[in-house]
Amino acid sequence: MSDGHLAMGGGAEFDLVRRLLDTWGARASGIGDDAAVIDVPDGERLVASTDASVENVHFKRGWMTPRELGARAATAALSDLAAMGARPLGLLLALGLPENWQAAAEELADGVGATASALACPIVGGNVTRSSELTLTVTVLGSAARPLSRSGASPGDIMFVTGRLGGPGAALAALLADRDPEPTARARFIAPTARIAEGRWLAAHGATALIDISDGLLADAGHLANASGVSLSLDVDAVPCLADCDTRTALLSGEEYELLVSVPSGVALATNAFERTFGIPLTRIGVVIERQDESVLTTGGGVLVAGHDHLVG
Amino acid sequence: MSDGHLAMGGGAEFDLVRRLLDTWGARASGIGDDAAVIDVPDGERLVASTDASVENVHFKRGWMTPRELGARAATAALSDLAAMGARPLGLLLALGLPENWQAAAEELADGVGATASALACPIVGGNVTRSSELTLTVTVLGSAARPLSRSGASPGDIMFVTGRLGGPGAALAALLADRDPEPTARARFIAPTARIAEGRWLAAHGATALIDISDGLLADAGHLANASGVSLSLDVDAVPCLADCDTRTALLSGEEYELLVSVPSGVALATNAFERTFGIPLTRIGVVIERQDESVLTTGGGVLVAGHDHLVG
Repeated sequence: MSDGHLAMGGGAEFDLVRRLLDTWGARASGIGDDAAVIDVPDGERLVASTDASVENVHFKRGWMTPRELGARAATAALSDLAAMGARPLGLLLALGLPENWQAAAEELADGVGATASALACPIVGGNVTRSSELTLTVTVLGSAARPLSRSGASPGDIMFVTGRLGGPGAALAALLADRDPEPTARARFIAPTARIAEGRWLAAHGATALIDISDGLLADAGHLANASGVSLSLDVDAVPCLADCDTRTALLSGEEYELLVSVPSGVALATNAFERTFGIPLTRIGVVIERQDESVLTTGGGVLVAGHDHLVG
Repeated sequence: MSDGHLAMGGGAEFDLVRRLLDTWGARASGIGDDAAVIDVPDGERLVASTDASVENVHFKRGWMTPRELGARAATAALSDLAAMGARPLGLLLALGLPENWQAAAEELADGVGATASALACPIVGGNVTRSSELTLTVTVLGSAARPLSRSGASPGDIMFVTGRLGGPGAALAALLADRDPEPTARARFIAPTARIAEGRWLAAHGATALIDISDGLLADAGHLANASGVSLSLDVDAVPCLADCDTRTALLSGEEYELLVSVPSGVALATNAFERTFGIPLTRIGVVIERQDESVLTTGGGVLVAGHDHLVG
């Protein structure tokens, strides 16, 4: 076929695959063989991650449109490439589609395609199956000359975070309480962005460890600290909050897909250039210290902070 | 950590991941960062595929043990690498685990690990989530200097198939009728093998197109023919059947994970050496012809054959 896909035979599964391919158009490439074939650039290493979004576990149907759901599932997966400082090479979508979602298949696919194409990531493969609840399992493949682990932070490094936190947590709290989220918070929850270009910029500017914020700033700071064998001292008052979000929400809000990064103290990080380039702030929020009993220590924030381990659970 | 995994923090998801990692031991490597990092051998191309096994869609709980289920899900995915003539580089498991499967998590993981280690494929990443039905979505990464598509068959090529067909179809029919499958057929259904080494042998011995038999010989022959823009003329009487299996079952039986391959007529394929090396036959079953209206034409088999398109559905 002229679009580089292989011709396929009949059957219900192939019909559904055809509907998805028609939706994706040029955003998909080479689908239809037993497996996708991808070239990893010379001198770069392959980076791979898989992430599932399951109805009634990660979202409820009424919270967003099918297109938003598809876009968000792709973002959650691609964010793991951002957290390695990698560039995307390809995305595979395993779709579990219940009967009552059949009519939304194109919209779901279009959302996945929108995120993928915004980040220059071709859709290279996938799988469709019936299921009793909607499941989007997205596998992303990327590459980097030097993939950036979460384990490279050393005492003395400075901690920075991208963007402004709290939106997803505030929106989720409202949705779970059957209230309409505040629009800015809703947008951060429904339509987050995988910080691919930002992750590559940070990797190129001396970052020693990088992680994306999926579990919440304090929790992911703990993961980075544990992986690096260090502790982090964070200044709670410095954490950039979305307008109308309180600091506690910003510390605990998950599914942010912002990046938390450590940089050697000798590196003068061009935070102004970062903000001009990407339109979001890059904010210093603490330092890396020798390993203590607790992985994350906090200053500022008053009484709120003492109990953060209980907040994080 | 000494086994190359990163240290992780607390939380229920991490507890489950730890149980899986403990089960896998040395069969997993480098899990715990945002993404896996893998080196594709110089001069080889990356091959990637994803495949889902869903409870009550692909299997019922009573049909096999959790360990067999895990092994079979990994085989189904790895078979797509075999069908490209690729060697495995890594496997990612996205596990959707209902409450009533929680206690079987280690057994499921052990099955995945058994298949992966038998094929020298490290487990490099994954994802765990709650779900309402057991779902194993397995993504496999491999490489080959020249990945073998299903689209390279030309008129005049000879068609071969590995192994003996019919077992999975016969076993499935028995299980669906609440009968005990015949032991040999059951073993072929419950514990199939991904023909990785066989696929690489075929690729190295001049194969022009390769596909694994997941939908049934006739259906997959049709996929290969359609992708290659040719038709296939198959001699039904030549199709190697498992003992006690009839030809009709052998033609339609899916989830075989045997390989169907085309080879130029000038290549003298060493079928005896193949059988000595791998312990399964490599059988000539037909030829590639110019494209006709039907993708697959059959000879032999008597009245059975005329209606195969209806059988294939």
